[in-house]
Amino acid sequence: METTDENTMSILIATDLHLGYKENDCIRGDDSFNTCVEIFEIADKNNVDFILLGGDLFHKSQPTISTLLRTMNIFAKYCLGDGASKIEILCERNANFGHSSLSTIKGVNFKNHNIKVKMPVFSIHGNHDCLRGKDYFSAIDHLSVAGYLNHFGRSTNLKEIKIDPICIQKGTTKLALYGLGYVADTRLHELFEEQKVKFQPIQQGASGEWFKLFVLHQNRTDRGSIATKDFIPENFIDEDINLIVWGHEHACEIDRDWKSGKSRVLQPGSSIATSLRESESKDKHVAILEIKGDNFNLIPIPLETVRPLHIETIILENFIDPHFKTKINNSQNNEKIQKTVIEVYNKTIKSAISKTYHEAENKRRKPLVRIKVDATGFESISAKGIDAQLLKKVANPNEIIHIFPRKNLLPADNRIDTSNLCQEKLNVEDLVHTYLKDNKEKTKMFNPSQLNDALIQFVYHDDKKAIEECCNKVTSKAINDLKELDLGGSREKISSKAFAFFEDKNKTSLPHNRAQSNDNHSIAVTSHSTYEGPPRKKNRLE
Amino acid sequence: METTDENTMSILIATDLHLGYKENDCIRGDDSFNTCVEIFEIADKNNVDFILLGGDLFHKSQPTISTLLRTMNIFAKYCLGDGASKIEILCERNANFGHSSLSTIKGVNFKNHNIKVKMPVFSIHGNHDCLRGKDYFSAIDHLSVAGYLNHFGRSTNLKEIKIDPICIQKGTTKLALYGLGYVADTRLHELFEEQKVKFQPIQQGASGEWFKLFVLHQNRTDRGSIATKDFIPENFIDEDINLIVWGHEHACEIDRDWKSGKSRVLQPGSSIATSLRESESKDKHVAILEIKGDNFNLIPIPLETVRPLHIETIILENFIDPHFKTKINNSQNNEKIQKTVIEVYNKTIKSAISKTYHEAENKRRKPLVRIKVDATGFESISAKGIDAQLLKKVANPNEIIHIFPRKNLLPADNRIDTSNLCQEKLNVEDLVHTYLKDNKEKTKMFNPSQLNDALIQFVYHDDKKAIEECCNKVTSKAINDLKELDLGGSREKISSKAFAFFEDKNKTSLPHNRAQSNDNHSIAVTSHSTYEGPPRKKNRLE
Repeated sequence: METTDENTMSILIATDLHLGYKENDCIRGDDSFNTCVEIFEIADKNNVDFILLGGDLFHKSQPTISTLLRTMNIFAKYCLGDGASKIEILCERNANFGHSSLSTIKGVNFKNHNIKVKMPVFSIHGNHDCLRGKDYFSAIDHLSVAGYLNHFGRSTNLKEIKIDPICIQKGTTKLALYGLGYVADTRLHELFEEQKVKFQPIQQGASGEWFKLFVLHQNRTDRGSIATKDFIPENFIDEDINLIVWGHEHACEIDRDWKSGKSRVLQPGSSIATSLRESESKDKHVAILEIKGDNFNLIPIPLETVRPLHIETIILENFIDPHFKTKINNSQNNEKIQKTVIEVYNKTIKSAISKTYHEAENKRRKPLVRIKVDATGFESISAKGIDAQLLKKVANPNEIIHIFPRKNLLPADNRIDTSNLCQEKLNVEDLVHTYLKDNKEKTKMFNPSQLNDALIQFVYHDDKKAIEECCNKVTSKAINDLKELDLGGSREKISSKAFAFFEDKNKTSLPHNRAQSNDNHSIAVTSHSTYEGPPRKKNRLE
Repeated sequence: METTDENTMSILIATDLHLGYKENDCIRGDDSFNTCVEIFEIADKNNVDFILLGGDLFHKSQPTISTLLRTMNIFAKYCLGDGASKIEILCERNANFGHSSLSTIKGVNFKNHNIKVKMPVFSIHGNHDCLRGKDYFSAIDHLSVAGYLNHFGRSTNLKEIKIDPICIQKGTTKLALYGLGYVADTRLHELFEEQKVKFQPIQQGASGEWFKLFVLHQNRTDRGSIATKDFIPENFIDEDINLIVWGHEHACEIDRDWKSGKSRVLQPGSSIATSLRESESKDKHVAILEIKGDNFNLIPIPLETVRPLHIETIILENFIDPHFKTKINNSQNNEKIQKTVIEVYNKTIKSAISKTYHEAENKRRKPLVRIKVDATGFESISAKGIDAQLLKKVANPNEIIHIFPRKNLLPADNRIDTSNLCQEKLNVEDLVHTYLKDNKEKTKMFNPSQLNDALIQFVYHDDKKAIEECCNKVTSKAINDLKELDLGGSREKISSKAFAFFEDKNKTSLPHNRAQSNDNHSIAVTSHSTYEGPPRKKNRLE
């Protein structure tokens, strides 16, 4: 297929641009914007008909003025201009554009006669730029109201979700574009189970064969627990849908899925790494989707501006002379060990750099390097002394070394040993985890997932009232529940009955095996019985 | 002059719209937006060539997403459309449009071929939407980058300010529009004194007679102290300037100034009352300025959407039966007094409502009522018991009564008596005042105006680092100053010498008579020796 074919619709697909990520970092501050520009350049060069984004355009639900204006400036440059797109909108009724209180963004921007749109952009919102407040505005609405973007897939009724398509035509090719902005995964999972998510039929009058594309922004994979509903299985989605664009998942899986033919899912992955994990270390891509009739073709296009991320795991023990095996609390030995460790670090960083960074070619940028260090049995290993010249060649000099202790060798009291965290900053989640772990009684009343959600709102979305509101809700619910129980007897008896009641309730909503499973996507407010290292960030926070 | 005359330039002038003011108030939340719409409607109806705003378009330097989007929506509706303005831009070089990092807002919006601008808006920024951060962005730049507004008069060099004109022509009429966004008053005052504020000549090639208009956003009046430079005298401004549009001052003085012929100043006043003071209670207006050659005409246009503000002062003592004069700590008397007071309140509120609110006419909206109560000698007067039916007819039911004690009758310890503040909320300024008053030594090192500025940034502009930065600056300056002094002797001697030095320094920068004068425009970090009631908000915060 040729993109210039008048019957071929060509769409650039990208997701999770996370604009503003690390905007104040002197090395990486421009990364997200540079890649955004690159994506627009690719769209421009390939003469696509429009751009489709899968959510998390912004990293924060309340972006700084600097991030907002830089973004609007980029959109103004690439979206406006002469040479209108060749696509035609047949119907867009109910497709959840705009917002009742904002009269100027009722329809698609390229139908607005006051602005010249050369590159239409359609986007759903993600969890990072989710709908907020009484008006349900998303950060991406700054772009909508400026006429730079078409925000669709807005659903505010969480009892039933009707997804209306935007009907787009180019020549003989007809596309029904369905979208659903981020909804809490568990809730959406339940709605699907209850058959309350309805893909609406194409309107009468818009006859003929339609290619059905659906874009969503949710957890895609079950991460091990059979009980959780914290993801959306692919087979929940109507069989009618020809192709599903999956946002939110940061790993680029373009090749794996569509080439295998086993899946309808196109998972482009984020265009920037927002964590130093394996899933983010694959080469980042966007995709060009070409549709002609009911055939389609996917062309992955590698992003050149993205920093390479190199991850290496080392087990310190393997590098230490057996002579020093009696190592703890022996200052002379410690000094030698420290020296050896730094040598290992330097060697590993050097090798990582050489694999990813070629100064002469000047093609790729300073890499991100993460060295995961199994320091089991070692105490107070410092990262001081790493070669400064090497650090200058790395984009994340202050967070290269990530020391993790092996679980089964941890001391019994399970305290977070901040010296072990070394150059990794201690984060709020760890603190909450530690606090709640030692105060199990305190969490009996709470359903951990409620607290989880509130904590996420508080920490990542700067919603100062989230925890207070959660507590108030839980408390008043609890009082009502207790009123219905027979709580006669002494104060102690009442207390123990009440605790038993709440414990029982929470077991129902969160089976114990989940809390103890290898669960890496829950913020640490569940009552783990052993500390398994600092929890990785919840996947939905990507 | 007729506005339809092809040689007459017609400009709608408004200032201090404070969009988003009390946006969460269920009665007044829409006020600022309603008046903004009214202003655009007036511009539209009168077919003006453009709108000129004098700053403080937004109430907060970081407006909420709701305020931003509502504002952009209004601008999109009224600024874009068919029927381009008949004005022509001859030169705009150096007029401080846009921002080097935002390529898309380099010139005026109606020269941008990608958008159809029917109503150009020119605006400087005020102190409320001042330039912030390393990028010097103002909240109004959200509108600039969307192509809805031309932000000019941006000056970031505080050693010398060059003001370049925007040269605008309509038929034979030529306007040189000079603008200067908000600069700290004292600094600007000094720059004027040092002849460092330079109105640049009109560029070569733009020949002929020019009408020179200057818009600024500063304190206009000297508020009593001969020493302060916290305002800009009118005569500082070049004689060449034909007319000065003065933003920031909330009182509408259109009639007073231009009709008298004594002043070149046009002071339209704010389009919304952001305090319940006399200056805000005058009827609010915008003005239409018509220029033809070097003649001009001003047409004040009253704003219909603005709530009337009625202020009444009562002295409680005058209403109390002499029989009850031994009133304090006599519970029986107190009850009778309380009853009488409530009767007085009800009567006064009723009278205020009848003067401003005519339900049948339904023309004006629920009024703002402020009753200033001199409660000297009375203790614990409550506002409970005011007729609920009356409160329903008032737009500010929770802040009607403002009790103030007469200074000379205050108890000796000068504590803030929160019972006296009654329904007036205790604010941060009062607390700081109280704290510093009892800790005079602590403020010796600081120049109160520096602390003032930092406090303003912290409290009103949500700048979390303002106070820390101020302290760091003062401390390092102090250390340098001390190094130059001879500080031999004991610790006590050093301390007393140092204190004497700083006291002396502060006297120079802020004469004691200022602090004791009837100064109502300084946040309470000066060391008043007597407490004069809760300080009113600093004028520059209007």
